[in-house]
Amino acid sequence: MASQKTVGVLLFEGFELLDVFGPLEAWGMHAEIANACTIVTAAEAAGAVKSAQGPRAMADYALADCPRIDIILVPGGIGTRREVYNAPLLEWLRRRAAEAEIVTSVCTGAALLARAGLLDGRRATSNKLSFKWVTERGPAVQWIKQARWVEDGKFATSSGVSAGIDMTLALIARLAGAETAEQVVIRMEYEWHRDPSWDPFAKIHGLV
Amino acid sequence: MASQKTVGVLLFEGFELLDVFGPLEAWGMHAEIANACTIVTAAEAAGAVKSAQGPRAMADYALADCPRIDIILVPGGIGTRREVYNAPLLEWLRRRAAEAEIVTSVCTGAALLARAGLLDGRRATSNKLSFKWVTERGPAVQWIKQARWVEDGKFATSSGVSAGIDMTLALIARLAGAETAEQVVIRMEYEWHRDPSWDPFAKIHGLV
Repeated sequence: MASQKTVGVLLFEGFELLDVFGPLEAWGMHAEIANACTIVTAAEAAGAVKSAQGPRAMADYALADCPRIDIILVPGGIGTRREVYNAPLLEWLRRRAAEAEIVTSVCTGAALLARAGLLDGRRATSNKLSFKWVTERGPAVQWIKQARWVEDGKFATSSGVSAGIDMTLALIARLAGAETAEQVVIRMEYEWHRDPSWDPFAKIHGLV
Repeated sequence: MASQKTVGVLLFEGFELLDVFGPLEAWGMHAEIANACTIVTAAEAAGAVKSAQGPRAMADYALADCPRIDIILVPGGIGTRREVYNAPLLEWLRRRAAEAEIVTSVCTGAALLARAGLLDGRRATSNKLSFKWVTERGPAVQWIKQARWVEDGKFATSSGVSAGIDMTLALIARLAGAETAEQVVIRMEYEWHRDPSWDPFAKIHGLV
């Protein structure tokens, strides 16, 4: 990357732990190797935010105070069921997406991007267990049933939970080259699914 | 599981994000499916603890105040380089390990268990990039160079970062049966490495 980017994560009560911290592990390793990015977290109010699994993470900033974000991460989790009705949060997403370089979602986080109207006319994917609920939130989106992740312009949406890691590695490869992404993979001791069409879970959930 | 277990995570400044939140995602999914466990986090002081990657997690309890833990999770991360000299923390690990049912580590977390003397005479593994540093912390441990994770009695130690997820799924299978573990895998949309000897990273780092 030419200059250091800010990766900004949206937190809300009931966010899914791995949706957030899988991608942040990969971005953090990228930072360690190439000093290429810093990470900030934001929520409606700064401070502790309870995850769907119980453990709490800290939001560094309230949404209004969050510095400019280059790469947005919108996680899923049971809290999305409530946040799809949160108009100020959706408006924040629209404003921040307009000035961002890359906008990503993991799992049911795609429902928030869809409800904000950001995915209309675009190709996108989401969690396979909750695929019906998510896709009903965005009738004008071209939902892809079988995909580990989908990239369309500045938007990248991934399938459920662990899929966010694979998507993030693909974005690191796009921004910094395949060799850097492979270094991240080795440090994470992770078996990266490099093929975005790899998705056995679509079949398990009867979508294909 | 017969009754609800408490999964307790040790946090310290410089913990590795995925070492903690990969396993907690799996334990949390297990809780969602079977109401089988609750998660608590503990650190020297309750409150925000900064990870190696920057984002902060909340410790629910100070070490001394933490309720009894059935399943201990000790993460790795750059902070272990300091904590191996933290005598009160090592003493806490010894006391809590004695009353726990299962004691787990991810990545360089094994160095803390080794320095506490808990792994002496046992088979164990760790992160492959930092293998030399970790193994020098425990000369009486039977270190296994090529392993995704190693189970020996109540102790389970995993290789680097993402390996903690595979180890946790194996423990869920041991405690609650393979079918429950497979349900967790499907909800996480994760490709579980079921074979503990799967470890391409040992070769990449010249250990075998």
